[in-house]
Amino acid sequence: MGRRTEAPPISWLMKLALDHPRLISLAAGFTDTESLPARETRGLLNEILGSRKRARAALQYGSTAGDPELRRLTAERLQELDAVASGAKSFRRTGAKAPYSPGRTVITNGSQQLLYLVTECLCDSGDIVLVEDPTYFVFLSIAQSRGLRCRGVRLEEDGIDLEHLEQTLETLKSRRELKRVKMLYLVSYHQNPTSVTTSFEKKARALKLLKRFESDAGHPIYLLEDAAYRELRFAGDDVCSALALPGADGRVVYAGTYSKPFTTGARVGFGILPGSLFTVVLSVKGNHDFGTSNLLQHLLSRALASCRYKNHLPELQRGYARKAAVMTDAMREYFPAVISWNKPRGGLYVWARLPRSVKSGVNSKLFQSALKHDVLYVPGQLCYAADPTRRRPDHEMRLSFGNATEADILKGIARLGATLQRLL
Amino acid sequence: MGRRTEAPPISWLMKLALDHPRLISLAAGFTDTESLPARETRGLLNEILGSRKRARAALQYGSTAGDPELRRLTAERLQELDAVASGAKSFRRTGAKAPYSPGRTVITNGSQQLLYLVTECLCDSGDIVLVEDPTYFVFLSIAQSRGLRCRGVRLEEDGIDLEHLEQTLETLKSRRELKRVKMLYLVSYHQNPTSVTTSFEKKARALKLLKRFESDAGHPIYLLEDAAYRELRFAGDDVCSALALPGADGRVVYAGTYSKPFTTGARVGFGILPGSLFTVVLSVKGNHDFGTSNLLQHLLSRALASCRYKNHLPELQRGYARKAAVMTDAMREYFPAVISWNKPRGGLYVWARLPRSVKSGVNSKLFQSALKHDVLYVPGQLCYAADPTRRRPDHEMRLSFGNATEADILKGIARLGATLQRLL
Repeated sequence: MGRRTEAPPISWLMKLALDHPRLISLAAGFTDTESLPARETRGLLNEILGSRKRARAALQYGSTAGDPELRRLTAERLQELDAVASGAKSFRRTGAKAPYSPGRTVITNGSQQLLYLVTECLCDSGDIVLVEDPTYFVFLSIAQSRGLRCRGVRLEEDGIDLEHLEQTLETLKSRRELKRVKMLYLVSYHQNPTSVTTSFEKKARALKLLKRFESDAGHPIYLLEDAAYRELRFAGDDVCSALALPGADGRVVYAGTYSKPFTTGARVGFGILPGSLFTVVLSVKGNHDFGTSNLLQHLLSRALASCRYKNHLPELQRGYARKAAVMTDAMREYFPAVISWNKPRGGLYVWARLPRSVKSGVNSKLFQSALKHDVLYVPGQLCYAADPTRRRPDHEMRLSFGNATEADILKGIARLGATLQRLL
Repeated sequence: MGRRTEAPPISWLMKLALDHPRLISLAAGFTDTESLPARETRGLLNEILGSRKRARAALQYGSTAGDPELRRLTAERLQELDAVASGAKSFRRTGAKAPYSPGRTVITNGSQQLLYLVTECLCDSGDIVLVEDPTYFVFLSIAQSRGLRCRGVRLEEDGIDLEHLEQTLETLKSRRELKRVKMLYLVSYHQNPTSVTTSFEKKARALKLLKRFESDAGHPIYLLEDAAYRELRFAGDDVCSALALPGADGRVVYAGTYSKPFTTGARVGFGILPGSLFTVVLSVKGNHDFGTSNLLQHLLSRALASCRYKNHLPELQRGYARKAAVMTDAMREYFPAVISWNKPRGGLYVWARLPRSVKSGVNSKLFQSALKHDVLYVPGQLCYAADPTRRRPDHEMRLSFGNATEADILKGIARLGATLQRLL
């Protein structure tokens, strides 16, 4: 395991940034520093630590699953989000069991830990995970590290290409490899890296498809929905989570986080899981750390209960909307016309597509030239799984407007534009 | 992996406590609630969050290895502890490379995460880990979960029985199983569960022994030193860590924590590792969570830098000394004379040995009767590895004076004593 694990790209991207102190990083997935809730956090922590009883609870060990209050508030918030999102479509959840159960909610060290735990619990070395093509590159690192094979499913403007998903499953079936397929991983809201949001209809049809192949697989095929960017939406309507699907019970894992929309540096994430998987994930988390920091959990509980969490969101979302507009306006001004992108409606990223002949990878002229001019982006190639059924595309860039200031976004895009103009 | 993992005993022990609200738990490894540093933590967090610059850093993502300041302060503190401990013995470290390097220090979610990461990186399913007999039961859960085999090495009053260690290694060699032996795990300070502290001489001789067998193993055999209870010492001198041993470089992993001596609910731990292992552990932590909460790390940095950490220790240690005395005094008064124990000099536990004929396991009359009288202890059996070379002893109890109040310790021991009197 140790011998197999490669240094994740995230590590050397961070090192590049450290080695170039004047660098404008449009690569980091960091959040906006200006709008981090310092005042709110200070107020909340003073309320917790100023009371003898509350302080004692927050500074003591807790349970592996997490603070009961935070688990309840998390499940409730999710139910509320889905109710609002589905109301618009007059969607009604059916089925006996509520999926929004505090009893199946686990609090984790960022949603990243949830992704790791679920992968660790479900997959053995050699197993197959279906992912979006492209997808979140740290998830690919987990898969690489654990010896898993990834199969990329093409991405359309409203989520994965269902025909391609079906075709992929059929091919795996005909090769008798379905028994190795354990899950489909979707970054379903303002996806990292493409900013695509998966429609509810696509989630429903994807889950149906997975179920159709289960009898051949001989086991459940889970849908792991990574909703990290859900609350960074600044345009359009929210979409109901896969938890609300008929038949979701027992199949859907929902991963969420409070790092993106609130206290990034607290790194509190969560998962809602099917009962059987919940038990196993809890046992493994018991071995990883037997519970996330109680102090941080109490901070988030109080933020949610006091509505300071909710009240923080509108301004945050307006800020990201502004920064996204600065970035895409600058791209329109400075980038050659052959380069295309979709305007993000949330999240932290713009996904820029160059002509296929122009390479954007780490060793490309573009990347090196950008670096020489102190601009860093994430090469698109890093977001594609090592899937032997196709060549990894190498002509895209993930550009983040999350952490850079508006001035730096403008400057960075102008420099990158000049580099692109020279190369094209 | 998921299918193999058993529910860790820690989970059902916690459940028992929840099901018996009037229970006096002498089982939990929780710290003393009264002495948790609420005032200090509040002050430190206000200093961090009251400054715009500091708040922004604390509330943003950090790097996987951890906050550079905390890594430096952690390495320095360890060097200082070892210098003081070795000074008394006029011990001098030799060798070119300092083991106390911030560059090899990683900050983790409790020291538990470090134990998990090291085990995950070093061991494959079927590998063998040498452990103290008895040892920390959550480490045994990690081993069980990862499909490892444990071999218990007898424990004496100053650490493991070196002859037994040698004999165990010889036996493994003759069975051609040395190549599966990856490490020796020692809880070297005020051990959980026995309260035994390993002498520096024993650490030195153990490391030499491991090295002697390496050529037959075909790879390094690491010494994983778990020093979780080191700073909870209330009698006797500190002992130098294995990091200070000649030849430690490249072989010794040191796991420490700030949870036991300071902010338990923050769950900040750390490790100092050999270079090659450091790199791999970092890659895997990159996948687990890409870094521990920056907010908590800044809290600990500031606690260390401002000496509020150091200044908190003497009173904490006096408190535990008092509670340990209350427990052992009560045991002397209420327990039958055939029961023996060693007076702890630190840590959180008293290890009580009953006559071999008296069972203490979960299904024993003793355990059930104690539970009926609302007292919970950790059955000694849980602390023994499933080692086919010997039967798991089942006549001991781990009694914790960490979390219960002095009044409850007294009451709990009196009740347990009455139960024991009836049964013996």
